[in-house]
Amino acid sequence: MGQIAPISRAEYEIRVEGARFLMREQELDALLITSERNFRYLTGFATQFWVSWTRPWFFVLPLTGAPTAIIPESGLVGIHETSWVTDIVTWPSPRPEDEGVSVLAKALTSLVKRFRRVGAELGPESRLGMPIRDFKKLEELLKPIPLVDCSGIMRRLRQVKSAAEVERIREACKVASNSLLIVPTSVSRSGATERTVCTDLRIELLRRGADEVRYLVGVSGQVSYANAIMGPRDRQLEAGDTLYIDVGCTVDGYHSDFNRNWAIGPPDEQVSRVYSAVYEATEIGIQAARPGVRVSEVWRVMASYLEPFGTPSAGSRMGHAVGLDLTEPPSISATDDTVLQPGMVMCIEPGVAFAPQMIMLHEEDIVITEAGNELLTHRAPAELPVIHV
Amino acid sequence: MGQIAPISRAEYEIRVEGARFLMREQELDALLITSERNFRYLTGFATQFWVSWTRPWFFVLPLTGAPTAIIPESGLVGIHETSWVTDIVTWPSPRPEDEGVSVLAKALTSLVKRFRRVGAELGPESRLGMPIRDFKKLEELLKPIPLVDCSGIMRRLRQVKSAAEVERIREACKVASNSLLIVPTSVSRSGATERTVCTDLRIELLRRGADEVRYLVGVSGQVSYANAIMGPRDRQLEAGDTLYIDVGCTVDGYHSDFNRNWAIGPPDEQVSRVYSAVYEATEIGIQAARPGVRVSEVWRVMASYLEPFGTPSAGSRMGHAVGLDLTEPPSISATDDTVLQPGMVMCIEPGVAFAPQMIMLHEEDIVITEAGNELLTHRAPAELPVIHV
Repeated sequence: MGQIAPISRAEYEIRVEGARFLMREQELDALLITSERNFRYLTGFATQFWVSWTRPWFFVLPLTGAPTAIIPESGLVGIHETSWVTDIVTWPSPRPEDEGVSVLAKALTSLVKRFRRVGAELGPESRLGMPIRDFKKLEELLKPIPLVDCSGIMRRLRQVKSAAEVERIREACKVASNSLLIVPTSVSRSGATERTVCTDLRIELLRRGADEVRYLVGVSGQVSYANAIMGPRDRQLEAGDTLYIDVGCTVDGYHSDFNRNWAIGPPDEQVSRVYSAVYEATEIGIQAARPGVRVSEVWRVMASYLEPFGTPSAGSRMGHAVGLDLTEPPSISATDDTVLQPGMVMCIEPGVAFAPQMIMLHEEDIVITEAGNELLTHRAPAELPVIHV
Repeated sequence: MGQIAPISRAEYEIRVEGARFLMREQELDALLITSERNFRYLTGFATQFWVSWTRPWFFVLPLTGAPTAIIPESGLVGIHETSWVTDIVTWPSPRPEDEGVSVLAKALTSLVKRFRRVGAELGPESRLGMPIRDFKKLEELLKPIPLVDCSGIMRRLRQVKSAAEVERIREACKVASNSLLIVPTSVSRSGATERTVCTDLRIELLRRGADEVRYLVGVSGQVSYANAIMGPRDRQLEAGDTLYIDVGCTVDGYHSDFNRNWAIGPPDEQVSRVYSAVYEATEIGIQAARPGVRVSEVWRVMASYLEPFGTPSAGSRMGHAVGLDLTEPPSISATDDTVLQPGMVMCIEPGVAFAPQMIMLHEEDIVITEAGNELLTHRAPAELPVIHV
């Protein structure tokens, strides 16, 4: 990541002004941000310390005036070092009886002047970064000012990526694409298991510049695999297996998310056929994913192509957006009518259940452009790749 | 992890019966579990898919009768493969307009017979694994049955570790202790930065058997470092620096959490002195951490020893428990009066701010035993280790 320039102050200003535009539209005096991803998106502050649930972190963005980060004392040095935000309020944490809540209530109360409403991350695909009991305390302290959902604002802001964001996802996809070249070598080692192959791949991802590997699934099965979210297990790979690997690595916080399939030994004829069908469905999905098209339409063309091969969409959707989160809205599903726009980064992920306990999934990452889209991953081979064992 | 036997069915039964004992005490008809760690603790089900916030996962434990996992359709195969729980209800997710909420409400309503109260993870150090808007919908659907805090139950269950849990933490600490041996080699490479050293260490941790490295902080600074939760940065390491590295890796879900310090080049006299003082404070903390002792007392003996060297406890506490979470309650702080019991696994973590923007932290992991405690980490050297550059 050494080569990628940091996200500029100007870009954070654009993000903040974008949020404020939407806040005015939704009549909010302030946003209260508690989740790692949205905190990072708006402030640039990133620490692995979010994995600890002892201390919450709050960012308050008012309609006008300076934003405030309300954070545990131990974060003070780090936020000054890495964020453009300069108004920092701290409390000595841990302090379970008042884990930042009274400081936060005071800050919010002073800002609620015009609309008398505050936005918080309450809606679909959100998680609140503080205990619910504290959230309810905050609601009491703010009364009669309500905390209303602002997840739509954050979604609208984040779903169209900037050039800097696309660059990071492109780099993560490149790191993952190149690292996956190690899989045949790793599988051909004597005694290779799902776990040994995933470990080799994790190491290769780090060597090639991934900051973290937050998601690396490897599953295998005779003829084919039965699910796409478990593993790796200590299951030894053997002739007749199909191996599935899905890589979510990050570069400066931004994810890759795509998978690859391999036959171990001579491939089963049905698996080869289904592989090619899902490859073709991916091709159809990529061709359909253009500005102005609804994601439900992208779903429809892939699903109808796959109908003859089994039950399409084993995972109940055929893709989603990707960015600071491994999976972001919209979902490429029958019911999501979000319209694609240039700058959206999407995983095109058709799948089919073609026999009992057997599925086949493909996935590629693309960025929507004015002209259509551009592939961020190195495209999977059109025919099922075989690893001889 | 190939060598460690899986956690037994009998152990899950003990966990469930323990939960039920506490549920009766707190007059709860059922527990609603939504967080990765508590879900895994009670069901044994583990998937990396929790990093995606599109789909929530619910586990419902009734006072009597079979527990139910209410999960996205795509989890069905995996939960049957890895969990003892057999009653599984699914919904086709994503379905933002009803993301499992109505199924969940129905399941809970049928169970609320005796106390007419349901427990959920609402209290200190908890995070709810579903959107708040959905949680509020659920509260409406359950009325007049309240959702009350059950975080105390989960805390009491999880804070005394079983032999199988200690074995996993011991293994994670061993993997981390051995992997840290690579640091001097890595630092002495030409152009070494915080980032290159942390990457080398991540790779070594994976090679030696860590499943994941969810937390790996590396910070450095001339004379000493200013914080202990940021980095790694692209900052080049140079003579006169102190380097701090903190490792949270997992083995079968259970964490190590401890740090190490090094002088790069000839050590500063004050840093050496403070290092030895914090080493000695750790020794005093370890000696004090025995069954029957309050954690506030462990804090007190370390803090009073460190007084002459600066401001003790830069991170506002001097340790905490560790397990499925990197940090778990209790906190070794002035105000936490939790009494230590055999089976608790604690990070003893004294620290001191000894000059402007300069701190020094030490950390070791121990398990409390009947006789006192046992070290799980390879003890840091008594004198500041020097890496010649």
